[in-house]
Amino acid sequence: MVKNAFYAQSGGVTAVINASACGVIETARANSDRIGTVFAGQNGIIGALAEELIDTSLETDAAIAALRHTPSGAFGSCRFKLKSLEENRREYERLIEVFKAHNIGYFFYNGGGDSADTCFKVSQLSDEMGFPIQAIHVPKTVDNDLPITDNCPGFGSVAKYIAISTMEASFDVASMCKTSTKVFVLEVMGRHAGWIAAAGGLASTRDNPIPIVILFPEIEFNQEKFLAEVDAKVKQHGYCSVVVSEGTHWPDGKFLAETGLKDAFGHSQLGGCAPVVANMIQTELGHKYHWGVADYMQRAARHIASASDVEQAYAMGKAAVEFALEGENSIMPTVDRISSRPYEWKIGKAPLSKVANVEKMMPAEFITEDGFGITDACREYLEPLIEGEDYPPYENGMPKYIRMQKVLADKKLPDFEV
Amino acid sequence: MVKNAFYAQSGGVTAVINASACGVIETARANSDRIGTVFAGQNGIIGALAEELIDTSLETDAAIAALRHTPSGAFGSCRFKLKSLEENRREYERLIEVFKAHNIGYFFYNGGGDSADTCFKVSQLSDEMGFPIQAIHVPKTVDNDLPITDNCPGFGSVAKYIAISTMEASFDVASMCKTSTKVFVLEVMGRHAGWIAAAGGLASTRDNPIPIVILFPEIEFNQEKFLAEVDAKVKQHGYCSVVVSEGTHWPDGKFLAETGLKDAFGHSQLGGCAPVVANMIQTELGHKYHWGVADYMQRAARHIASASDVEQAYAMGKAAVEFALEGENSIMPTVDRISSRPYEWKIGKAPLSKVANVEKMMPAEFITEDGFGITDACREYLEPLIEGEDYPPYENGMPKYIRMQKVLADKKLPDFEV
Repeated sequence: MVKNAFYAQSGGVTAVINASACGVIETARANSDRIGTVFAGQNGIIGALAEELIDTSLETDAAIAALRHTPSGAFGSCRFKLKSLEENRREYERLIEVFKAHNIGYFFYNGGGDSADTCFKVSQLSDEMGFPIQAIHVPKTVDNDLPITDNCPGFGSVAKYIAISTMEASFDVASMCKTSTKVFVLEVMGRHAGWIAAAGGLASTRDNPIPIVILFPEIEFNQEKFLAEVDAKVKQHGYCSVVVSEGTHWPDGKFLAETGLKDAFGHSQLGGCAPVVANMIQTELGHKYHWGVADYMQRAARHIASASDVEQAYAMGKAAVEFALEGENSIMPTVDRISSRPYEWKIGKAPLSKVANVEKMMPAEFITEDGFGITDACREYLEPLIEGEDYPPYENGMPKYIRMQKVLADKKLPDFEV
Repeated sequence: MVKNAFYAQSGGVTAVINASACGVIETARANSDRIGTVFAGQNGIIGALAEELIDTSLETDAAIAALRHTPSGAFGSCRFKLKSLEENRREYERLIEVFKAHNIGYFFYNGGGDSADTCFKVSQLSDEMGFPIQAIHVPKTVDNDLPITDNCPGFGSVAKYIAISTMEASFDVASMCKTSTKVFVLEVMGRHAGWIAAAGGLASTRDNPIPIVILFPEIEFNQEKFLAEVDAKVKQHGYCSVVVSEGTHWPDGKFLAETGLKDAFGHSQLGGCAPVVANMIQTELGHKYHWGVADYMQRAARHIASASDVEQAYAMGKAAVEFALEGENSIMPTVDRISSRPYEWKIGKAPLSKVANVEKMMPAEFITEDGFGITDACREYLEPLIEGEDYPPYENGMPKYIRMQKVLADKKLPDFEV
């Protein structure tokens, strides 16, 4: 019997989450004898609760294909975590009502660790509430912190963007350092895990060595040691770049960004950690600095997405549908690395019970002993993930990104307060 | 008689200043019957004063060709303005000594408005001090503020980067705004002229409209009006992007970035204007925000350089040499626009006396009446400048940028204190 599918994007979006959506929808279309309409949740799981279901069958094949090269979450995402069945049975009952009303038998959830937990809970609905549903999680997170899978779609493209930006800005500082700026500080994402900061280390290559100091959230910040390291590099090379993770913190756990900055009226101002680090360098070492904050640019930079990342994002979406058609429930497709050089990988699967709420940190052997750099093992791990360029099409100098029509399916149920 | 040439990079570097260097050196090589060695100043004009002359004849043709796709200043740049002949005759005498010692008869100076002034002064050496030299200025500035020329090499690529980054980050906010971030603030360069900020407006196209509020240095900041504009856009579209020029200032001339922020020890901290604007939006409107600072990334982003910018940067270098061979002195090649749609342009020339120390601001008719957007006339002006993508080659996922060998010519003179 043909069942419809529900697909939703969850949490912070990425440059390639839509490539996963593309994989899900194109694979469902290719199996229309077994999967009917793919409904996408408007603004993530909230769309399911609110019965705001985007009817993707009304989007053309060309529009769906263009998702592969469009950053952000084309159907809208949300930061919303389902409570447990015990705590909020009402929400699960609503989900079942909506799924029933729209003949939905497949649930594809595209997100990170928190979302894997939601997906896991939905996957239990068959057993717990007698509603037949197959829930498959599609991995996505720029933080690269999901367990079991070798890496997470979304990360490779951020890594490529940060590596290139660090290289380019370092070339800039190198040319200015004689009479002007000597230190460039780049703030990157990663509140708990330093994967993105580590990518800054790729800017330095054997052919083109660049003095880089990385500040990881995994390593307690030591101001004295840090300043000595920066100063030594400036003395040796004339300049230095610093890549600082937003999660960098003092030994007492306080983030560098929380420095008690106050405006003229005494209000606290949260200013990011890059200016804090930069001011420290100026005050203590007297070096002229510049600083940048990559923020959303890093995770939206589809214009320089990694080809291997795009390919894997699509493959994860495709595999999710294929697993569902094989009868699987409560799993997540994974990227299993076969070899790094040359890069080979295959698709595996992981039970959601082992994925939900587990965070994968940088292993200690990926960080150099001084705590400021990446090891060769780390480089070997990271390099394949930024391999290849997957450029979007352009028109009049700008990328041609797609917007969905987002036509909602007719509601069949009474309103529900989310 | 064959004379050697001196070439130097000046001021802030760009994604395409090396393309101009490439144009100068390749054209000189093609005319080796009339131009001998091109010596590049190590760290700009300082290299001439210190007699640190990079012998570019020792760089391979392939290395010189690779300059076309390498960002930053390959020979080093500096922030150093020659005083007038009256104020510092010693420096001019030294320049003449160095030029004589190395048989230099051509002076190519690659920079912005301040540098045009230096180049102008050097061009007067024939008349003022009886030393035969032809000085040609090669235009370069991300600020796009040189007069006479339609635009400045370096600007088009920053404009493309800012337009794309604003579009990508806006797509990101749009997908998150239901439950999370509603406003994204991007800080861009341009202390006096709002050309770069204006480029943010290109992110919004007819097919893909995006609510954007631009803060120009040409317009006095009005907090009340600004917040009302942001709030209206958030209410209408659910989200909004703000592009703020670092030169945005209050009616009293004080930059937004100077808000009297103090750290825990009472030290003043200069934090950039993006966090100031973002905090204002949070405090007064209650909207969740994210902010980014493009800093050096914007002017080093060779990975997404504009093809028309690269072409013009090269053409300006080439034209400078050709003008010199025609016997010109004290001029700057210019980009003369013939038509915008389709884009056609030709090379012109401007006397340095009319270029030096003149700053070209955004014309009033390029800014919408409310002061927060760009007009159709501005769009028509900007669009050709971001046309086309000129991707660098890649290896292992990273751009293959070149570094010069930088072998210095033997010194023939006693040391000189710069």
